[in-house]
Amino acid sequence: MTIYGNSVSGNCHKVAFVCDRLGIPNRWLEVDFLKGETRTPEFLAMNPAGQVPFIRFEDGRLLAQSNAIMLYLAEGSDLIPADAFERALMNQWLFWEQYSHETAIAVRRFHAFVLKKPDSDIDPALMEKGNRALGVMEGHLATRRYFVGEKLSLADLALVAYTRFAHEAGFDLATFPHVRDWVKRVEDDLNLTS
Amino acid sequence: MTIYGNSVSGNCHKVAFVCDRLGIPNRWLEVDFLKGETRTPEFLAMNPAGQVPFIRFEDGRLLAQSNAIMLYLAEGSDLIPADAFERALMNQWLFWEQYSHETAIAVRRFHAFVLKKPDSDIDPALMEKGNRALGVMEGHLATRRYFVGEKLSLADLALVAYTRFAHEAGFDLATFPHVRDWVKRVEDDLNLTS
Repeated sequence: MTIYGNSVSGNCHKVAFVCDRLGIPNRWLEVDFLKGETRTPEFLAMNPAGQVPFIRFEDGRLLAQSNAIMLYLAEGSDLIPADAFERALMNQWLFWEQYSHETAIAVRRFHAFVLKKPDSDIDPALMEKGNRALGVMEGHLATRRYFVGEKLSLADLALVAYTRFAHEAGFDLATFPHVRDWVKRVEDDLNLTS
Repeated sequence: MTIYGNSVSGNCHKVAFVCDRLGIPNRWLEVDFLKGETRTPEFLAMNPAGQVPFIRFEDGRLLAQSNAIMLYLAEGSDLIPADAFERALMNQWLFWEQYSHETAIAVRRFHAFVLKKPDSDIDPALMEKGNRALGVMEGHLATRRYFVGEKLSLADLALVAYTRFAHEAGFDLATFPHVRDWVKRVEDDLNLTS
């Protein structure tokens, strides 16, 4: 299985988290979207959405979208709750992550950390939206150690991917102590160095 | 089961599509986000994300995010493919819909159709992003009748929710004939009047 990914992208890290955790053999193929490598005809023939990560299995099947890839690779593992309603809550957080979290924190990190733009050149709405997302997480984690069912699930993997780099995006996790502690907890679970 | 929804929102329609298709009894509670009803303390206590749709079951359990709600309500039905990889592809489209489609077409429709803004007051990037999303769908549907496995699935329900209102967002489906035909097909399947 080949992972088409980019080392700076939290979305791509999610796929690596699942592979490492579950011992799934894989080959990482680095794709540099800054050099336009996700916009070539060859790339778009494999993934018309023009995004990483996506995976190509040995038999040629292709699968895109970080959270969909995680769900497929982790099927049957303890990263997905056995209870149907807990699975639903996990999915709720996966969709929320892509809609309300990644679109603020990952996007602001891209401008601030990857493109090195000064604050004045970055849409101020991203800071507001990101702080609102972190506030939602802080409230949820005030009484919980993990997002769903008091154990590690794909919801934690998806959300930690960019939350652990929130400082690179210009956010201050000291204001969100439950989030900060949860990041450390999940990083420890995944044997990541922060 | 109570659906907290808004009649203009395609995301909320998705939940109604699944309930109607599968005969799931429900009560619809109209929430007017234009009047700030998703930002009251009572609403935020139920859904901190401040969004509709969400559902409240009789026993008090709460579930948010349109695509997560569909996945939960449709579990075990023929709206979800039995094959694991087809399910993965369905999930891929569900995440793509929320990240690359809704954020352009639904958002532009909100500005143009709901808020009645003139074109000059709407971010031109939304038109470009929406046309790119419709182009991805057009390419996929050029050789297929449905998004996954040649039968109706949640991928079609999620994507049709706003695509059928693309004209209200300022997009011209005449440029995307396979998408236009697929909208009609799915509307017929769901007994919707266009």
